[in-house]
Amino acid sequence: MKKIITALLLTSSLAANATSAEFTAKQLQQVDEVRSAALKSPLSYELLESLTTEVGPRLPGTENDKKAVAWAKARFNELGFDKVWLEEATFPEWRRYSESGKILTPSEQPLHLTALGNSISTPKEGVTGSVVLFETLDELIAAPANSLKGKIAYINYRMNRNIDGNGYGPAVKARATGAIEAAKKGAIAYMMRSVSTAHHRFAHTGGSYYKEGVKKIPNVTIANPDADQIARLVALNKAVSVNINVQAQSLGEGIGYNVIGQFNGTENPEQYVLIGGHLDSWDLGTGALDDGAGVALTMAAAKHISDVKRPKRSIRVVLFAAEELGLWGAKAYFAKHKNDLHNIVAAAESDFGADVVYGFESNVDAASLPVVRAIAKELAPLNVEYIGKNQANGGPDLIPFKNAVSAPIFELAQDGTDYFDYHHTADDTLDKVTPAKLRQNTAAYAVFALMAADAKTTIKPKAATK
Amino acid sequence: MKKIITALLLTSSLAANATSAEFTAKQLQQVDEVRSAALKSPLSYELLESLTTEVGPRLPGTENDKKAVAWAKARFNELGFDKVWLEEATFPEWRRYSESGKILTPSEQPLHLTALGNSISTPKEGVTGSVVLFETLDELIAAPANSLKGKIAYINYRMNRNIDGNGYGPAVKARATGAIEAAKKGAIAYMMRSVSTAHHRFAHTGGSYYKEGVKKIPNVTIANPDADQIARLVALNKAVSVNINVQAQSLGEGIGYNVIGQFNGTENPEQYVLIGGHLDSWDLGTGALDDGAGVALTMAAAKHISDVKRPKRSIRVVLFAAEELGLWGAKAYFAKHKNDLHNIVAAAESDFGADVVYGFESNVDAASLPVVRAIAKELAPLNVEYIGKNQANGGPDLIPFKNAVSAPIFELAQDGTDYFDYHHTADDTLDKVTPAKLRQNTAAYAVFALMAADAKTTIKPKAATK
Ligand SMILES: [Zn+2]
Ligand SMILES: [Zn+2]
Repeated sequence: MKKIITALLLTSSLAANATSAEFTAKQLQQVDEVRSAALKSPLSYELLESLTTEVGPRLPGTENDKKAVAWAKARFNELGFDKVWLEEATFPEWRRYSESGKILTPSEQPLHLTALGNSISTPKEGVTGSVVLFETLDELIAAPANSLKGKIAYINYRMNRNIDGNGYGPAVKARATGAIEAAKKGAIAYMMRSVSTAHHRFAHTGGSYYKEGVKKIPNVTIANPDADQIARLVALNKAVSVNINVQAQSLGEGIGYNVIGQFNGTENPEQYVLIGGHLDSWDLGTGALDDGAGVALTMAAAKHISDVKRPKRSIRVVLFAAEELGLWGAKAYFAKHKNDLHNIVAAAESDFGADVVYGFESNVDAASLPVVRAIAKELAPLNVEYIGKNQANGGPDLIPFKNAVSAPIFELAQDGTDYFDYHHTADDTLDKVTPAKLRQNTAAYAVFALMAADAKTTIKPKAATK
Repeated sequence: MKKIITALLLTSSLAANATSAEFTAKQLQQVDEVRSAALKSPLSYELLESLTTEVGPRLPGTENDKKAVAWAKARFNELGFDKVWLEEATFPEWRRYSESGKILTPSEQPLHLTALGNSISTPKEGVTGSVVLFETLDELIAAPANSLKGKIAYINYRMNRNIDGNGYGPAVKARATGAIEAAKKGAIAYMMRSVSTAHHRFAHTGGSYYKEGVKKIPNVTIANPDADQIARLVALNKAVSVNINVQAQSLGEGIGYNVIGQFNGTENPEQYVLIGGHLDSWDLGTGALDDGAGVALTMAAAKHISDVKRPKRSIRVVLFAAEELGLWGAKAYFAKHKNDLHNIVAAAESDFGADVVYGFESNVDAASLPVVRAIAKELAPLNVEYIGKNQANGGPDLIPFKNAVSAPIFELAQDGTDYFDYHHTADDTLDKVTPAKLRQNTAAYAVFALMAADAKTTIKPKAATK
């Protein structure tokens, strides 16, 4: 016990030393002011309410997508950002017009489905066929050639619920490539259990792809209760036939915009902390959790910092375009900035809802760890734990960044236990966000961004290994 | 403290006396056997799973409604009921073909709506108009004549959540008659916040009516998140216009059947305990909570009794037809049996989902209260509390019975806190029923029905006051 206490005291005094080396007492006082202001302020919730109410769903290329860009630009200006600008991004435009489904035999009943992004249409009357159930994508891949001729391939795989969303990856494989594998076996349509932890009757949409040389077939997911129903009917040895009707369209290359707001640094304005989220959303809900929350809380976090001070380095809020269709805004951003990516001293994207931030993690050079620990210390009053493995992954829009260079990525890990109940569904609406939790998120981002921008040491990425 | 203990002891010994007068030790042993068997048996869940999977939604007059009648008759026979029969009931047949909605201005987005039962269709392209918001039905009624010409009337009233569902009544008024009041003011359509406690994006359907001499207008409800969105947009002083598209049809008089199974009594077979639920459901979900559960648990309860004994009086399970469209099966039953309703010694309908039964209540003659207390004592091990006001209301299908005669009504009160999250939605599916809770419900109904049928004293209703 004595050993532990001694160790704690040592850690604590080391941390205090690190902090005092990196930040003056006045700077720490400013951190406290920002944190307190963010915890009390309704700003992030007001921004989220405004975006999801006045704009609503924000599918890339739609009228609403343009409204969202105008909304973000106007809000950055109203909030007094020093610099506000747009950067173009192109993406493959796609629209959903209508969709419906039915189980026809053994007993007629509605089937709650949604088309995956990029899906082709069915004929006007839909496509009708009997269902062949596979528990996993691998089993579909292992099916004999032509064995699904005239049939509808169905994958029944159910994702696991977990605080860090680790059930998503294994489930998403079947979403991305299932239609290709089904078409290879002769299937006339592809259907899968939604990538979802919900027990509500919403189908979850998401990105999906076709492959050159493989026939494109309609590509849908069904809600968990409907998936259970199909699985029960199949288990009863009933012949299960369904009708799937999707009317959708690919419209070629669309144009959108990353919307960017910056508070300029006082000493090294060319260096910046990048925080943000993605401005687009799927068309079904109003994109409150995915990713209105990330947009609102990072805009508000920067504003709360600016109310107290301009740090040494700039704080840049990037609202990425067309994330849902394949990180198109992120790709454009990192391509455009490929020659000055070294100016990013820290990057964190919020794109995992707005439940409490429970963990803080870095991915930086060892010499930068004292700054990281100093930040962690100031996040602790928000009940954020320092993870300390220095292996942060970051949000999806940082993937091109990581692919381009060795990158100082940070993660403010949100509790994702319920995230996949709502993600990519019609049910992703404002009422799913708890104002107090959003404030805690905002405060965490504000503390992180201020300290990363204002530290004595410039944070550096791990030495490049690629 | 001592006083309380003495009081408890007194109550307990009085109860013991009442019990021993009404039931022999052997009978009480049989009650225990039935209760234990029901608590362990998967039967009620299996019946519910079979009904909701193999038949699915059961809108009166549909093919599935006929399948449900055949299902129930077959199951009664398989379970060994002594007598199984059908009784005809007519009702006004109605079908929903399709429905969709959009907010058009200030920003286009989907509107999750559902037509109320009996609604007329809109034109093929839907009806478009600007929304006039009223917080309550009374405020709509108070609006000036013709003030809604060309507009869509919208009532924003939100029902309260409560264990006994007492928020339902006040909210349902606007569902039953709102379209009439809106049409009187010149509205082209009627829209209301769903009668719902859910924060999910399902609109709740339900019964609604038109009035001779008042123009029929389309009649829909919207999901709570959509209602919040409309209310926020109106509060922002935005002109809110919506498009409502409903394709539905009234088909004249339909024919359905109450399906009835009986275990005959050994001493007074003409006297019977009536338990049951309604076999029909709305078309949106699979009617698991409303009222597959009531059907399954009362069938199973009777079967568990019969496995142990045939009581003195008969046990009759009545599965009512066309409840959702206006208690048509119940009206037919009580009209057909109007000359022998005095044979019903106790009646209880389960039509409030399948959360735990927490309370037991009677509505009987004072001379029958010792039997009631004896039953309550045997329900206590199931965590069912005796309410003891002797003012039970009973399920909806017992209303015609209460209207016809003074009726010995019982209530096994289910916890309805979450019931109106699912009631009358697409989300009323099997996964919403917890097997262990359904078993507790089944055991409670079995104990009640066995004891009411096997008591020494014949339970009598309160003296008629009508
Ligand atoms: Zn996202
Ligand atoms: Zn009901």
